[in-house]
Amino acid sequence: MIAETPKPPYYAVIFTTLRTENNEGYKDMSDRMVELARKQEGFLGIESARDGLGITVSYWQDLDAIKSWKHNLEHTAAREEGRKKWYAEYKLRIAKVDHDYDFARD
Amino acid sequence: MIAETPKPPYYAVIFTTLRTENNEGYKDMSDRMVELARKQEGFLGIESARDGLGITVSYWQDLDAIKSWKHNLEHTAAREEGRKKWYAEYKLRIAKVDHDYDFARD
Repeated sequence: MIAETPKPPYYAVIFTTLRTENNEGYKDMSDRMVELARKQEGFLGIESARDGLGITVSYWQDLDAIKSWKHNLEHTAAREEGRKKWYAEYKLRIAKVDHDYDFARD
Repeated sequence: MIAETPKPPYYAVIFTTLRTENNEGYKDMSDRMVELARKQEGFLGIESARDGLGITVSYWQDLDAIKSWKHNLEHTAAREEGRKKWYAEYKLRIAKVDHDYDFARD
């Protein structure tokens, strides 16, 4: 569930959201977007958690991969639907990962 | 709850965790670390969510601010305790945020 990303540098899209109370179609859309993202060239991994605030971080090989994902037609439609129905507020940040550190229990 | 960060560039520390079943002292430590981080020079904000996977993203003015926070003595002690007791696995990524986008419902 922790994304197994390659050695940096790579890119992260940090998507922080507050939902509306409208759940209609949300879960299907959300699952579909993860499924679609995984098929994109340059996709490296995704991590997601929600308890009130939702945080989804997707990881990408380069900015071109992020741009292609942004322009994916189904993704674009889902974003528009999201602003109309599912999200009260969100912030999206695009960041370049330069360092990472791991810990795993023996 | 969505961090109100300034115009980029700034830095993000993405801390993704899987917990052990040991909850002893975890909540107190976690609250204390947020309280301490907020007092650090160059701290910009923090976002956190957990449902199984935990994701905490803290935002910082520059890499020096992140380094100072890393070397904070209480934080260093908490990390050591965390590896012994609270975390089964974690990954920490340091990233430079170059772009961000907002949405808020009217």
